[in-house]
Amino acid sequence: MTDRIREFLRNRRDDGPIMVVDLEVVAANFAKFARALPDTRVFYAVKANPAPEILNLLAEMGSCFDCASVVEIEQALATGVSADRISFGNTIKKEKDIARALQYGVRLFAVDCEPEVEKIGRQAEIIGAKDVKVFCRFLQDCEGAEWPLSRKFGCAAEMAPRVLEHAHRLGLQAYGLSFHVGSQQTNMGAWDQALTTASSIFATLAERGIELKMVNMGGGFPTKYLKDVPAAEAYGAAIFEALTKHFGNRLPETIIEPGRGMVGNAGIIESEVVLISKKSDEDEVRWVYLDIGKFHGLAETMDEAIRYPIRTERDGDETAPCVLAGPTCDSVDVMYEKKPYDLPVSLSIGDKVLIEATGAYTTTYSTVGFNGFAPLASVCI
Amino acid sequence: MTDRIREFLRNRRDDGPIMVVDLEVVAANFAKFARALPDTRVFYAVKANPAPEILNLLAEMGSCFDCASVVEIEQALATGVSADRISFGNTIKKEKDIARALQYGVRLFAVDCEPEVEKIGRQAEIIGAKDVKVFCRFLQDCEGAEWPLSRKFGCAAEMAPRVLEHAHRLGLQAYGLSFHVGSQQTNMGAWDQALTTASSIFATLAERGIELKMVNMGGGFPTKYLKDVPAAEAYGAAIFEALTKHFGNRLPETIIEPGRGMVGNAGIIESEVVLISKKSDEDEVRWVYLDIGKFHGLAETMDEAIRYPIRTERDGDETAPCVLAGPTCDSVDVMYEKKPYDLPVSLSIGDKVLIEATGAYTTTYSTVGFNGFAPLASVCI
Repeated sequence: MTDRIREFLRNRRDDGPIMVVDLEVVAANFAKFARALPDTRVFYAVKANPAPEILNLLAEMGSCFDCASVVEIEQALATGVSADRISFGNTIKKEKDIARALQYGVRLFAVDCEPEVEKIGRQAEIIGAKDVKVFCRFLQDCEGAEWPLSRKFGCAAEMAPRVLEHAHRLGLQAYGLSFHVGSQQTNMGAWDQALTTASSIFATLAERGIELKMVNMGGGFPTKYLKDVPAAEAYGAAIFEALTKHFGNRLPETIIEPGRGMVGNAGIIESEVVLISKKSDEDEVRWVYLDIGKFHGLAETMDEAIRYPIRTERDGDETAPCVLAGPTCDSVDVMYEKKPYDLPVSLSIGDKVLIEATGAYTTTYSTVGFNGFAPLASVCI
Repeated sequence: MTDRIREFLRNRRDDGPIMVVDLEVVAANFAKFARALPDTRVFYAVKANPAPEILNLLAEMGSCFDCASVVEIEQALATGVSADRISFGNTIKKEKDIARALQYGVRLFAVDCEPEVEKIGRQAEIIGAKDVKVFCRFLQDCEGAEWPLSRKFGCAAEMAPRVLEHAHRLGLQAYGLSFHVGSQQTNMGAWDQALTTASSIFATLAERGIELKMVNMGGGFPTKYLKDVPAAEAYGAAIFEALTKHFGNRLPETIIEPGRGMVGNAGIIESEVVLISKKSDEDEVRWVYLDIGKFHGLAETMDEAIRYPIRTERDGDETAPCVLAGPTCDSVDVMYEKKPYDLPVSLSIGDKVLIEATGAYTTTYSTVGFNGFAPLASVCI
């Protein structure tokens, strides 16, 4: 909670839940990444929060953009950056969307299988684009991540050389590799392990006459929720050490794709207590219902995965465990129940509640208006 | 898949996933409920699908509306129905929203605790509304339901009389009770069990001089996905028998609130195969990526809860198990993985795929545009 957000909320006159982003925090986060990994290009993962103010700020600071779709490419281009600062980072693309991206001048594409390489090869040929770079994502063990990723993206490391050779054969530039160590990764050894694999794929392809140039080290940089997380500097040092260990003095070009790590701690949701009740006289746990829930921004509480820090006007008063739920007529719209949340006993209907570290994956996860409640509003200050 | 939908899709020229609702199926469903329970008023659960065409059709057929918010009340009123055909069925309401509903003429409100009764009492007094009815939801065991509900809505049955007495004391009409047997309930004994509890609460309050008049039997009526489900007639017979058993010849006014049961089987999503790949040479299971996933309408595949029937242009060809995933750069955007889905081996990139029984809880569960993909489009024919 920054002074600027506190001031904004004090003067706020409208009603309903809102997410407030402090752009100064975003700027500070970008500066931290740039300082921690000075030779690495930062591609902000637009999907985390595509607010134009955030994209404009990052464009101005020199950031590049990792885009999941043509719309995100258009959002990035709207900042005025040139297309060479954009990566089409989704491994799952319609061929017509690849064509659109190529027409916009985008030349960097993620792949993880031969059929995707073929789509790009075909469209690059049609358009006559000569300098199209592809990087292949390989599957990486996510040990140490709070949310290990599924196997959705990436191929087995053994398959990556074949995918890149196929690109080379089709006239594309077999440019490099990518991996993702998992979200909220706090084990810095994870990058070392992935870079071991990456350097061996570099070696395999070099033997076959293909010189890879780039390693995209993905995201996974954590935001502080309730527990402390290592600082960007610590990540930078560990990653640089691993790069040197595996690539010696022939360091590849490197990319990182922070999303949560760039905007998560820059945003706060202000919400209101709609109801506090008990289910029976014997119940020890109260139910606290907010005017925001899983369907309007807090989807990442699914399985109680993220435990957001929550502040109230009554902090300091005696607390008791509460089930925390959203306002919709949907029984899954419950944020914390298995592990109830301690909140002040004095908390009352109508009180404001601040949900911290909600700058990433909230506004975009909101439904279009389930139960007639508006999508999560947001403002950048 | 009706002939009308087939015809519509054959002539469709635009691109991207779409949900098509056949209004004739909705009309047939309403007629089935009306026939199965001729003395019960049907309150359509607007949240399942608030498309204006659906609301207009149901209004014309005589349906009432169960609304979760002021916006849903406004959507119901836009059909031209009078406010006495609307229930504000959410037990979690801001006091200002209760005031708005009262101003619109709504007089039927759900509650499950004394603080909520107080909000309604206060606003009814301010507005001077004399005929405000409240019904209290009690917690009901959901055995037999495919998705037993959480404890989010309702109070313990022992607490319900006190909640309703409180309403009576505040000048509101202690009107009745509600319960919900759980979603996709196929055990018809569930209603009998809930009605046992309801009749005993009626008796308790009668002893205290309060005569309840209404039982809201909620939703829970299933849609056919892959397994067959009992017909509306079977539900009607079982419910009528239970009502007679517990209330004798003094049957209360009754209400049902079908949502999924009204529109689920009326809608079909047309989607496109974006990519088919394998993660390694040894993998037996292919990954099939569609242009729709959890974030754009298929949220109910969470934990693989609903298994939608899927049709392809290649049905009849040899099949093999596939992991089915959505198009976003989000690793949780996977529909079926723990239990892969058998799809034709001949299925190819660019093929159309039909996802059946998707008329309920799809368009409204869609995000505002996660990853830059548009919210799920829909059309009623």
